[in-house]
Amino acid sequence: MPSTSLSFASRDAHRAWLAGQARLPRGFRAGAAALEFTPFEVARPARMKLTLLALDRPTGAFGLVFTRNAFPGAPVVVGRRRLEAARLGAVLVNNKISNVCAPGGVEAAERLCAEAGRALGLAPDEVLPSSTGIIGWRLPVDAMAAALPAAVAALQAETILPAAEGIMTTDLYPKVRRAALPGGASIVGIAKGAGMIEPNLATMLVYLLTDAAVPRAGLRAALSAAVAGSFNAISIDSDTSTSDTVALLASGAAGPVDAAAFQAALTQVCRDLAEDVVRNGEGVRHVLRVRVSGAPDRAAALALGKAIVNSPLLKTAVAGNDPNVGRLVMALGKEAGARGIPLDPARARLTLGGEVIVEGGLFRLDAERERRLTAHLVAAELYPQAPAADGITFRPPVDFPRHERCVEIAAEVGAGPGQAEVLGADLTHEYVTENADYRS
Amino acid sequence: MPSTSLSFASRDAHRAWLAGQARLPRGFRAGAAALEFTPFEVARPARMKLTLLALDRPTGAFGLVFTRNAFPGAPVVVGRRRLEAARLGAVLVNNKISNVCAPGGVEAAERLCAEAGRALGLAPDEVLPSSTGIIGWRLPVDAMAAALPAAVAALQAETILPAAEGIMTTDLYPKVRRAALPGGASIVGIAKGAGMIEPNLATMLVYLLTDAAVPRAGLRAALSAAVAGSFNAISIDSDTSTSDTVALLASGAAGPVDAAAFQAALTQVCRDLAEDVVRNGEGVRHVLRVRVSGAPDRAAALALGKAIVNSPLLKTAVAGNDPNVGRLVMALGKEAGARGIPLDPARARLTLGGEVIVEGGLFRLDAERERRLTAHLVAAELYPQAPAADGITFRPPVDFPRHERCVEIAAEVGAGPGQAEVLGADLTHEYVTENADYRS
Repeated sequence: MPSTSLSFASRDAHRAWLAGQARLPRGFRAGAAALEFTPFEVARPARMKLTLLALDRPTGAFGLVFTRNAFPGAPVVVGRRRLEAARLGAVLVNNKISNVCAPGGVEAAERLCAEAGRALGLAPDEVLPSSTGIIGWRLPVDAMAAALPAAVAALQAETILPAAEGIMTTDLYPKVRRAALPGGASIVGIAKGAGMIEPNLATMLVYLLTDAAVPRAGLRAALSAAVAGSFNAISIDSDTSTSDTVALLASGAAGPVDAAAFQAALTQVCRDLAEDVVRNGEGVRHVLRVRVSGAPDRAAALALGKAIVNSPLLKTAVAGNDPNVGRLVMALGKEAGARGIPLDPARARLTLGGEVIVEGGLFRLDAERERRLTAHLVAAELYPQAPAADGITFRPPVDFPRHERCVEIAAEVGAGPGQAEVLGADLTHEYVTENADYRS
Repeated sequence: MPSTSLSFASRDAHRAWLAGQARLPRGFRAGAAALEFTPFEVARPARMKLTLLALDRPTGAFGLVFTRNAFPGAPVVVGRRRLEAARLGAVLVNNKISNVCAPGGVEAAERLCAEAGRALGLAPDEVLPSSTGIIGWRLPVDAMAAALPAAVAALQAETILPAAEGIMTTDLYPKVRRAALPGGASIVGIAKGAGMIEPNLATMLVYLLTDAAVPRAGLRAALSAAVAGSFNAISIDSDTSTSDTVALLASGAAGPVDAAAFQAALTQVCRDLAEDVVRNGEGVRHVLRVRVSGAPDRAAALALGKAIVNSPLLKTAVAGNDPNVGRLVMALGKEAGARGIPLDPARARLTLGGEVIVEGGLFRLDAERERRLTAHLVAAELYPQAPAADGITFRPPVDFPRHERCVEIAAEVGAGPGQAEVLGADLTHEYVTENADYRS
């Protein structure tokens, strides 16, 4: 996806680059505040961050895309109402609790919007709520309302970085991407992700801000196109969150821009953020990039690509730097068989790291090629596996991305013109550790 | 699935029970022989077992069901030819190498059938080949042919247990189940499974022998019905093997039986073996049983059930004995949303271990219920997690199933009459260890 491949030698180098990415477009302010509270559900204290993104003036130019999960969170229920609102002036995000299927969840989200609106001079329906974190727990509305003034006081027009940090849950580092537009306008996006990520959308919150002046209809069409080729073409663990949200807000402060340039810049920011989300997925040590071609259509190509990146057996093999190409063939054949895609093994061609591994219905393997495949996997590793100190609890030893290399897989199916590119991740001990007891 | 819940206090107790299950029906012999060889692909020696199941007289009454994977193994290609054969007299199975997409694979399988047929007085097409193990490697045909006489010499009419052991790969213990039929006939089945298991079918080899006299057409219809509710309703890791095979052979030595009794017994044996396969899946510490009701139809119910047992986030939570019911809601909602199933959260009802956790669109949770949910998960654990001695390599400390308890999940969707029951497994450090470097 990204044409550039970034490489960071240290957390400080990554932070310096992030600071440059994070300059706010004109017409926006961002801020965050922390609070402590005692959840209704457990007796021990917990921490939460309240994050605000505010426009200097409410805008009618906004677009929103939400999860297709049939149990949407309360903020998604409220967010869908906002789609028809005349204007949005702010986004209020909390981490720690996702406000899904909790008693009084919609009322809690609406009350917080009203409180935030009061503090910012906005109507309640000019505020978009977002929540991420534990499913099922209730929001501590009183504690959150009490912390709102601190979040408002923290608003500033320089950088979106505090907001990128404020929305994190198990993310190891903040994710910020920008693209410049002709005439001095820009698009800046932030994302949080980490787990429950196979967007349609995923437990992924993404906020895209631009000072370009783009009318609502054009903005929404551009967002829909950008999401299809980015956030809807990634999968960390095949799970789809109840709370996914992508929001795009345009202040218009920099005036109109060329529509094609805007689409290109928006797509690039979305693709970059989507890759950031995968690369910082829970326990991810390798990012897989699968290019499928020759499928009957794009939907089939996307399904085949997702079947490959979601195969637990392929994912674990990649985690072990084991070029187990049999599992790649299995994963492709599984989905083709299940979907009735006319895949003729004799016409299929598979490569890994640019090496042909299957052609003419046969494996093309030898010891030398195997050595090169292993080297490709090792080079794409974000960090080497380290034994768990206690024998069970694996912790990623990184808080910045060291490189943007991927395990590169290409599958030519030989059954049509359909193409797709999908990003996914390996399946590691770190993932199991992180998810076997996330709540405690 | 099984109405009985077995409990074994030791490996010896399990072995004693297996011995009783394993008595061969009349008209069959079973045997196995080991061989050493050097694979073409690597320089180090390897071991393989050759297993034979033979009828005293070839039978026209047989049924075969194969994987739907679009890259079928050579034995599946040959096996599909056998479907139209007049008779089968023997099955020849090897472990270690699955003979998938390997040069000359079909010829190798046919040559071994011819060699086995010569030794047993059968035509080449009266022998069914089966292979399981590494994908991509070539069969050591000469070494296997040289070991055939030992396998033939090992044939005996008492017990199928040596065959159940001979077909194992990463299975921790052999899997044998029997059902008695009125009039003294019986059905005895063996299975190997462990990984790459979401049958349609899975890397699962299953051989079912009966001395009941059932004509071919009735036998095949009964097998199809039994497979739909057993092997096609389980998933260990959502991956579908290139080599899955279920074979049913009837010697007829015990004469005709009532068709309904035969169907019931065959279904029971298939369900029992399917549960055995899940319970002995790679790294499995908990078996999940999901009963979905109220779906629009059975296919939708099956898809919802499989989405639950295949959710990595739910699977890891179960591994950690964490009753993370939010992930259960997420998994159900993900599939319903993706499939457009009209799931109204207000009408859905979810239980875990018999406890209502979601009803009327809201979670029904409190600290006491949470405690009971955790106790349910702990009780269903096959063995407690033990730290890896080297900090990385987790080894299951069991070689027999201690009990047949499951993590019991029920999901009432409120959208129709469709029902299904699906078995699945948790996702553990043991699974990652076993699959991160299986080949080396």
